[in-house]
Amino acid sequence: MSFSIGEIFRMTVFGESHGVCVGVTVEGVPAGTEIDRRSIQKELDKRRPGQSSITTQRKESDRVEVLSGVSEGKADGGPVTMLIRNEDVDSSYYEDIRYTPRPGHADHTAMIKYGEDHDHRGGGFFSGRMTAAYVMAGAIAKHILKERGIETMAHVTQIGDVKVQKELSHEDIQENVYRNDLRCADTDMIDDLREEVVKAKREGDSIGGMIEARIIGLPAGIGEPLFDSMESVLSRYMFSIPAVKGVDFGAGMEAATMRGAEHNDAFVMDGDKIVTETNNAGGILGGISSGMPVVMKVAIKPTPSISIPQRTVDVETKEECELKVRGRHDPCIAIRAVPVVECLSACAVLDLVFRGEIDG
Amino acid sequence: MSFSIGEIFRMTVFGESHGVCVGVTVEGVPAGTEIDRRSIQKELDKRRPGQSSITTQRKESDRVEVLSGVSEGKADGGPVTMLIRNEDVDSSYYEDIRYTPRPGHADHTAMIKYGEDHDHRGGGFFSGRMTAAYVMAGAIAKHILKERGIETMAHVTQIGDVKVQKELSHEDIQENVYRNDLRCADTDMIDDLREEVVKAKREGDSIGGMIEARIIGLPAGIGEPLFDSMESVLSRYMFSIPAVKGVDFGAGMEAATMRGAEHNDAFVMDGDKIVTETNNAGGILGGISSGMPVVMKVAIKPTPSISIPQRTVDVETKEECELKVRGRHDPCIAIRAVPVVECLSACAVLDLVFRGEIDG
Amino acid sequence: MSFSIGEIFRMTVFGESHGVCVGVTVEGVPAGTEIDRRSIQKELDKRRPGQSSITTQRKESDRVEVLSGVSEGKADGGPVTMLIRNEDVDSSYYEDIRYTPRPGHADHTAMIKYGEDHDHRGGGFFSGRMTAAYVMAGAIAKHILKERGIETMAHVTQIGDVKVQKELSHEDIQENVYRNDLRCADTDMIDDLREEVVKAKREGDSIGGMIEARIIGLPAGIGEPLFDSMESVLSRYMFSIPAVKGVDFGAGMEAATMRGAEHNDAFVMDGDKIVTETNNAGGILGGISSGMPVVMKVAIKPTPSISIPQRTVDVETKEECELKVRGRHDPCIAIRAVPVVECLSACAVLDLVFRGEIDG
Amino acid sequence: MSFSIGEIFRMTVFGESHGVCVGVTVEGVPAGTEIDRRSIQKELDKRRPGQSSITTQRKESDRVEVLSGVSEGKADGGPVTMLIRNEDVDSSYYEDIRYTPRPGHADHTAMIKYGEDHDHRGGGFFSGRMTAAYVMAGAIAKHILKERGIETMAHVTQIGDVKVQKELSHEDIQENVYRNDLRCADTDMIDDLREEVVKAKREGDSIGGMIEARIIGLPAGIGEPLFDSMESVLSRYMFSIPAVKGVDFGAGMEAATMRGAEHNDAFVMDGDKIVTETNNAGGILGGISSGMPVVMKVAIKPTPSISIPQRTVDVETKEECELKVRGRHDPCIAIRAVPVVECLSACAVLDLVFRGEIDG
Repeated sequence: MSFSIGEIFRMTVFGESHGVCVGVTVEGVPAGTEIDRRSIQKELDKRRPGQSSITTQRKESDRVEVLSGVSEGKADGGPVTMLIRNEDVDSSYYEDIRYTPRPGHADHTAMIKYGEDHDHRGGGFFSGRMTAAYVMAGAIAKHILKERGIETMAHVTQIGDVKVQKELSHEDIQENVYRNDLRCADTDMIDDLREEVVKAKREGDSIGGMIEARIIGLPAGIGEPLFDSMESVLSRYMFSIPAVKGVDFGAGMEAATMRGAEHNDAFVMDGDKIVTETNNAGGILGGISSGMPVVMKVAIKPTPSISIPQRTVDVETKEECELKVRGRHDPCIAIRAVPVVECLSACAVLDLVFRGEIDG
Repeated sequence: MSFSIGEIFRMTVFGESHGVCVGVTVEGVPAGTEIDRRSIQKELDKRRPGQSSITTQRKESDRVEVLSGVSEGKADGGPVTMLIRNEDVDSSYYEDIRYTPRPGHADHTAMIKYGEDHDHRGGGFFSGRMTAAYVMAGAIAKHILKERGIETMAHVTQIGDVKVQKELSHEDIQENVYRNDLRCADTDMIDDLREEVVKAKREGDSIGGMIEARIIGLPAGIGEPLFDSMESVLSRYMFSIPAVKGVDFGAGMEAATMRGAEHNDAFVMDGDKIVTETNNAGGILGGISSGMPVVMKVAIKPTPSISIPQRTVDVETKEECELKVRGRHDPCIAIRAVPVVECLSACAVLDLVFRGEIDG
Repeated sequence: MSFSIGEIFRMTVFGESHGVCVGVTVEGVPAGTEIDRRSIQKELDKRRPGQSSITTQRKESDRVEVLSGVSEGKADGGPVTMLIRNEDVDSSYYEDIRYTPRPGHADHTAMIKYGEDHDHRGGGFFSGRMTAAYVMAGAIAKHILKERGIETMAHVTQIGDVKVQKELSHEDIQENVYRNDLRCADTDMIDDLREEVVKAKREGDSIGGMIEARIIGLPAGIGEPLFDSMESVLSRYMFSIPAVKGVDFGAGMEAATMRGAEHNDAFVMDGDKIVTETNNAGGILGGISSGMPVVMKVAIKPTPSISIPQRTVDVETKEECELKVRGRHDPCIAIRAVPVVECLSACAVLDLVFRGEIDG
Repeated sequence: MSFSIGEIFRMTVFGESHGVCVGVTVEGVPAGTEIDRRSIQKELDKRRPGQSSITTQRKESDRVEVLSGVSEGKADGGPVTMLIRNEDVDSSYYEDIRYTPRPGHADHTAMIKYGEDHDHRGGGFFSGRMTAAYVMAGAIAKHILKERGIETMAHVTQIGDVKVQKELSHEDIQENVYRNDLRCADTDMIDDLREEVVKAKREGDSIGGMIEARIIGLPAGIGEPLFDSMESVLSRYMFSIPAVKGVDFGAGMEAATMRGAEHNDAFVMDGDKIVTETNNAGGILGGISSGMPVVMKVAIKPTPSISIPQRTVDVETKEECELKVRGRHDPCIAIRAVPVVECLSACAVLDLVFRGEIDG
């Protein structure tokens, strides 16, 4: 199902950008799990719009409401339904584009799939706002994983041509990412990255970026062969974030250029633990976690909504025309995608962790 | 389920590299579909080992047996089960590595997940040989798609540092790929690519490669929002091919470096059809096909089995040691992965096409 | 998943009897489907408590709120989330039974499965109130089916030892069922049935009943072989209604006593249509609809909550004791189950109808 | 999917009655599980045709072949594929009925669903022979359950109007069922039951029967709320056996006639264990096992193939005609359904047991 994912820890998302709300129902939360509204809110706040001059100015409080599945602060074993309401909805922008699909957006494909009456305002359920649902589910997943010693994290490693070169420790990421508005773990690079965004914004343009995610504390043996390999599952989740156009693991795309002797990670002893010397495999062998950190890169395209005039077509008259997209958009959506990647990774991994608890 | 995939056109694979057989059961083949054993065989022959000096010397006839679902050359509406038997099995190689996992392989993670008694011979069901099952299912998917005017294709675009630069037409790919042992569509590049492989092989090493896949003839409107976006579904299938470490679409990873004005594909008229001028989106907007060709890149790591000595660990004694992998391995597995990518893309797309037949 | 059902028309239910709400998210509603809040309300009103002297006195307005998936009265193709809030919640009753499980209830099994902290108030998500979620989903399913000429209906055929004997036409059922508080289609039997209920109620007891459901207008060829036979699917849905303890089709349980010559329905011509003379098969052959009306019987146990003292055990002290259940309960829950059976049948059948649209 | 069932212990069946084979692929068998070909064979032998004068004379050795998933007598964690070949296939009978569907059979609905070219010989995949696949899967399930102290059993309790009245212990059933050709646990009733079958057979007719199944040793807390209630899951499996027309639990259909005070099972102490005095609930409360034996009744219709002339229709000419079914059929298929009910119950329960291992 396209709005549901997960075999045991399963989420079903619902809502629209300019409708009543965006929400999620999470099945598979073990009874007794502590569900703290404030910690869910804290995760939501990380992706909330309107927090900085380089993100969208849409003002949303994004206050989580918990509708089911929780009794006296604990999961009761039933589905946990949570939602945030849409408050700052200005659909006036969208009349302009009713018949002139925005380049790079889902406007045209949605029209074909769902008919011309489809609710195009704010992108409907194609909106990036749907990722708030992932974050609410992910907040619970992160909590459950943490109790098992597993953590997910994410950070911006590149915007346009500016790239973080420094080797970053897990601690660098955990400490720095949410302390700056670029979601960057290398504090020396923040100004350069911001400059890229500001330049694009000033020109009415937008810019792409790269996010690295890591999963640490994951024991070896998690993940399944073939269709539910760690990579299969994680990539499916990642590509459900609008704007993601590439996902790789460890050496990733670079593996195509490498020799086996270089790419293979030698097994060595670290005390009495078997580890690998390098981590080109990104913590995954045969689809199954090796015990090394899982490392994944996620490429985010530039926000398609830009104020620079673009060529499009009027679907009614079938005439080419020019479009200048109005509205309040993020000049670099990669930034706000960081907590989404982090939370969604947690959902993916938790489902595999739960499945691993039977396979023995 | 990790051995099953697809919601309507669903395959379940089974078998082991050194067991009796490798097979697949395909549900969702419409009754009356022509099932031609020879055309399945033809697809299998494209990935069959032992065909060239630069692929593995394992000799397998890979002759397909159809066990169910077909009556008088036509699908009867029930599951179609097909298999190939394993003939040239030499498991003697594998005694060496029973306790010394091969770097880059699933040996160690399999041992942890399934216990030390796990059948390690030939990689068991982690073997690349499992992809023959994908090809059998894909042969049927390709046939059904072709009747709807949809075709999938794949070709090698890079091996090591040698990269095909030429713009290739769909016809170039369809005509050339299976006419040369490099699975390359640019005939001018064949010798250079072969040289990369031969050099690696001569040194007892292996080398990675990149495959591009294209899906043409796909109407706009196929694919689902969010978790079953075209990209989510295709990437999940691709990462179920052992050795795949990265997948991207259209501009892909490069999108991270681009501006919106550059990345957005302008809508223009082509006769009375709405198309895009460029195809940075790789034929997918909002997870749904746009009517442009779907373009995907798949990075294949170098074959982990190399004869150069490597460092590993004896899991029994917990001592570091050296391992020289024997056996008959492909120096560049990307080559034989081409028909697999092509067939598996067909399975993924057909499932979405079938699902699209209800959504309206 | 235990809170989700359906492959294409898929519902996920959430909520608790004494929590915030009871709700449902429905995926697979085709874009453009008319969604009329009032017609959903109308279905809900049929099962609303507090409507008659022979049903529970809990007062709930059960007013449906639509949170997503609808724009300007039409489905937008995304999930439709609907809920009703709990208003008349009096959990004081439930302190009594915290440690003394009610016989016939899920109290004890829930405690074992979810722990002693499990929200026991009002039965939590084991409550019959969850069926309001089925009704909301079913209201949409019924609407979509009706456009295809398919209708589901249900009526009480027996309460205790009083049994409707008359052959009832579809029209009898459609006209009469919701015009009387017994949900009985044979108006001559209403008083006798009521007497059974009143008698049980007066004695502080409860009583069971039988519901017959029919699905008419269903074309031949709907349903799948084996695991998704019409019977498999319908029975799975029916047994998800708390209190259902038996389901059969056509001659049903009686088939065990019959000869083949008697049970087999002869094929005959009705104009140019092939029909069967009798309908012992209940409209289903080989799991697939035959074109005859689907006829199903559903046995509903007596409401377990009775005020007559019962023996139970204190789970803390492990001592046997006596329990007199307080609270406002239906003396014959079969009555209020009628619209639930009707709506849930619609959900089951619609899912199979949608699936049938691909199988060709 | 209609040929697959189970979320963790998942089987996919394939094959046809008159094709090459009937087989099954079982996913979710834990690595290391002992897989003994002989014990699978033993289960198959219980349902093998041609064993007695009151079952079909079709001669099949039904010898199981294991194609995958097993290495040195143990499951390797991959799918276990098993099949039996069809040997005694005489399709000549079936030319008669190509255009004249047999009353009570799937011939006509199959024709409508799959087209007139559908393989009608022997019923194709609608044949009762498909249940051999259930038995092979069930043999593995039974073995895994037994290691957890759980056993499933089944026996004939009624044929036509002859009914077993005696209270039978679990031991009665386990000892007697496979020692007589009636699959009856009350040895005093065997002659009367046989007489019913012989009489029907002599007249060219067939007769229905009732099977009771029990699951013992099941701990309390297995099963899920709502859609995966024990009853929902078990009934879905049971109705996938061709010829099953009714399923109930505990007091079952009789619950409709009962008072709450009579139907509710009082909780009492048995040593330090909480049990119920009676078992009208059939071991299930709120969809979840109570720790009492699960008791289920399954109604089997009379075999539709009878040699008494029956009325049918020629689908080509649309003329009514008379049909005398030839072939070798069981006069009372309930008898051979006993091991099928037993094995399929094991598959259903094991899936729920595995799922229960995560829910905490």
